[in-house]
Amino acid sequence: MNYRFVFNQIGKLFVVLGVALFLVSISEKIFDEEATGVAFRALMMTAFLGAGLGGLVWWATRSAPVNLGRREALLLVALSWILGAVFAGAPYFFWSHLASDIGPDHPFKSSVNCYFEAMSGLTTTGATILSDIESIPHSLLLWRAFTHWLGGLGIVLLFVAVLPSLGVGGKKLYQIEAPGPTPEGVHPHIRETARILWFLYMGLTTVQVALLYIAGMDTFESICHTFATLATGGFSTRNASVGHFNALTIDLILIFFMFLAGGNFGLYHQLIRGRWRQVLADPEFRFYAFLVVGGSLIVSLSLIDQPIRMTGGEVLEPSIGGALRQGFFTTTSIQTTTGFCTSDFDKWPFVAKGVLILLMFIGGCSGSTAGGMKVIRVWMAFRIMIAEIEKVFRPNVIRPLKVGNTAVDNDLKLGTLAYIFGIIILFIVGTGAIMVLEPAEHECSFTTAATASIATLCTIGPGLHQVGAIENYGWFSAPSKLVMVILMALGRLEVFAIIVLFVPKFWKGD
Amino acid sequence: MNYRFVFNQIGKLFVVLGVALFLVSISEKIFDEEATGVAFRALMMTAFLGAGLGGLVWWATRSAPVNLGRREALLLVALSWILGAVFAGAPYFFWSHLASDIGPDHPFKSSVNCYFEAMSGLTTTGATILSDIESIPHSLLLWRAFTHWLGGLGIVLLFVAVLPSLGVGGKKLYQIEAPGPTPEGVHPHIRETARILWFLYMGLTTVQVALLYIAGMDTFESICHTFATLATGGFSTRNASVGHFNALTIDLILIFFMFLAGGNFGLYHQLIRGRWRQVLADPEFRFYAFLVVGGSLIVSLSLIDQPIRMTGGEVLEPSIGGALRQGFFTTTSIQTTTGFCTSDFDKWPFVAKGVLILLMFIGGCSGSTAGGMKVIRVWMAFRIMIAEIEKVFRPNVIRPLKVGNTAVDNDLKLGTLAYIFGIIILFIVGTGAIMVLEPAEHECSFTTAATASIATLCTIGPGLHQVGAIENYGWFSAPSKLVMVILMALGRLEVFAIIVLFVPKFWKGD
Repeated sequence: MNYRFVFNQIGKLFVVLGVALFLVSISEKIFDEEATGVAFRALMMTAFLGAGLGGLVWWATRSAPVNLGRREALLLVALSWILGAVFAGAPYFFWSHLASDIGPDHPFKSSVNCYFEAMSGLTTTGATILSDIESIPHSLLLWRAFTHWLGGLGIVLLFVAVLPSLGVGGKKLYQIEAPGPTPEGVHPHIRETARILWFLYMGLTTVQVALLYIAGMDTFESICHTFATLATGGFSTRNASVGHFNALTIDLILIFFMFLAGGNFGLYHQLIRGRWRQVLADPEFRFYAFLVVGGSLIVSLSLIDQPIRMTGGEVLEPSIGGALRQGFFTTTSIQTTTGFCTSDFDKWPFVAKGVLILLMFIGGCSGSTAGGMKVIRVWMAFRIMIAEIEKVFRPNVIRPLKVGNTAVDNDLKLGTLAYIFGIIILFIVGTGAIMVLEPAEHECSFTTAATASIATLCTIGPGLHQVGAIENYGWFSAPSKLVMVILMALGRLEVFAIIVLFVPKFWKGD
Repeated sequence: MNYRFVFNQIGKLFVVLGVALFLVSISEKIFDEEATGVAFRALMMTAFLGAGLGGLVWWATRSAPVNLGRREALLLVALSWILGAVFAGAPYFFWSHLASDIGPDHPFKSSVNCYFEAMSGLTTTGATILSDIESIPHSLLLWRAFTHWLGGLGIVLLFVAVLPSLGVGGKKLYQIEAPGPTPEGVHPHIRETARILWFLYMGLTTVQVALLYIAGMDTFESICHTFATLATGGFSTRNASVGHFNALTIDLILIFFMFLAGGNFGLYHQLIRGRWRQVLADPEFRFYAFLVVGGSLIVSLSLIDQPIRMTGGEVLEPSIGGALRQGFFTTTSIQTTTGFCTSDFDKWPFVAKGVLILLMFIGGCSGSTAGGMKVIRVWMAFRIMIAEIEKVFRPNVIRPLKVGNTAVDNDLKLGTLAYIFGIIILFIVGTGAIMVLEPAEHECSFTTAATASIATLCTIGPGLHQVGAIENYGWFSAPSKLVMVILMALGRLEVFAIIVLFVPKFWKGD
């Protein structure tokens, strides 16, 4: 293993992160009305410390052979996220220890909490350990939202540019499925692809910020919520999440952009080039739209005769409009693994909660910023199941499984089912670990542990019961939080890049 | 589809069932101390009605072309269980309507309840709708236990003799895995195989009846519990299940025979022929033993500091001996999908319940009378997962997956994962259906619905909460019971023979 080159790259990453943080923290001067100055100092400390340390490592390993093998690349990806979260969480920690007006019980006094919040940000999960978000300085909240945006773009670039060449996760899925920006395949044009995606992401960000601003949010909130939407993250600047605004236009804008963010970004490039037929013919996108709309309708139907309790505490009388609005918003938010909340869906009927839980597992499309098993895998798994059933009574009929125009071979089929099975195993292991690690006095219910496990593994954010829409993750014990940190990283990097770290064979050999 | 020949075979089956029932009901004269006579009449009515109708159908279709294609065989298997349960449940129904001393609320007054109890018997599930088992005449209880025994042997014969040639379920698993009675393969020697298994089953039955009798059960109870053990069924003759007897020797005998019944019967034939090495080298059997012993130890450990509530109501003080006894009995009973209970494991700590639920999904070995995903499939799935992980960082290393000496091809790997995935989907669909179908006043908890779903799908019997060790299934609504009837049949026939009935294509074509 060429450790030196891996660390060389990590050093470079820290310099980039430091510069990014420096730029973001200038916003202190624009947004932080309280102008505490302490948050600014915390951010600057992190920026200089991170960039300095990163630069040092970069310089110390400058003579490393430029040779990124498969194992090195996996380690690099894993470390980028694991150490990146240390960097991303440092401002929270520094701020809580620098500010004199903060009580000793503030969540950010604990390093585990800061790490959890940072990993939740970078992995675009959106699970928070904060109970009073609004008391945090705006500059820190902006950085918090920015970690989403960074992780969201990061993951897309990773899957387009780096992981395909490693055979990791979505590799073949992407090659087959996503009509990537260049029809000849992604690999030979990594720089070009990255550039296009960067512009697309920037463009969408600008448009959404403008729309949210027009709809009534202030600049700061428009930017933070846009970052959280396009990355399918879910961090809000408000304790009541998006429910705070209670504006139909804002809900509609967010539904639209959450839906976009859960789709394959490669498709949008096709769209810009006028190839809208390809988008409409894409089996994953069609199934994705079907799931979101179908799920929303079922959820809405189950809410029609129910009073709906909003995250702000208000209770809506039963109405068709209210049911549709809350049903579509929540379902889109959950399936795209964003996790914005307007109403407390923990109190909803079983059918609604059942649909939401199932959609949590499925998640968004490949090549999107969303988590979960991914729509294309679930679609393929169902096709495989149907073929297996038909094989029983028609053993001689061979129906090749096609995605678009490409036939899927047995290896990919096996990998798809293994991935889905793996997510289920990780979900079970996560649930069990949380149940075992939580002390009795927390009275952590099974539903809480199970939904916390899936909500972190699939990078959603809110779950049910004690991690429901109006709850937070702050009360968990530190060991449980670390388990969830691992689950978030596993879910974000499509399992493999993290899981290999636990395999002894991975570390052995040349 | 050659319907006439299928019905011809079903007619034959009914004649055989009629004769079997006639022979069993003679036991009325031996065992039924209450000597009501009504139960005898109910049994005889069923025997003659069934045999008569069966004979009629047989005669009417005698000219059907003897031609059993793949689809015909699947339909035959499915109908054998679906209509066989009608036959098996008829005595309960007739008895409740013939006897004058039975209140209008007796569970057997409902035809759905009778069908549920019969399907639970034939599929060796052991879930009962009875709250007061001891008030049922002995002859009916004997028939109830006998349905287990019939279904248990039936399923083994089915998998050895009929299904392999159809490519259904365990086919390839069996061919590869089970060192069947004839090393050259099972197919050419169906009759011989059936004969050997029949003798083996009879022999084990005789030995267990004798041992239980020596240990203190009376003849009736020895026979009933033996039927329920070897078929991994779980019907007891007592309201407190096996906990009623509270005798260490009985517990030990049952643990031993439950363990045997959950193993591959083909292996025992090897054992008789002195090939014990083959048994010890069998990967499935080794993994099975490992799971039972390992699971039992974890469960026992979690019980050491707990008072244990027995099914009879007694509460044991915490003790190592008590923890080991209850841990091993319950774990073996659950994993082998038998479902005998001595203590109320619904009150056990989370770790114990978690292990038991996981083992419910896994179940026993292929070629056994047990249900569940089957040990060999789970073992293969784990091997596939590990290979997939290694593939990520060592793409060029190819490690063929071997079961015994045979390499497993990609088709079988895919089938294995698809089967496991299928069980999970059916479990989810079953849980959702029960939750939706149960009226609000039943206050059916999610845990209840989920464990009822898995306890029927994997033919175990008891679950948790409202279907726990000291509860029963009588309180469910009729639609839920019918869902569970389908789950039991699906689980018993390894999904495919039942699921094809719901596929339109299955019914079409020549």
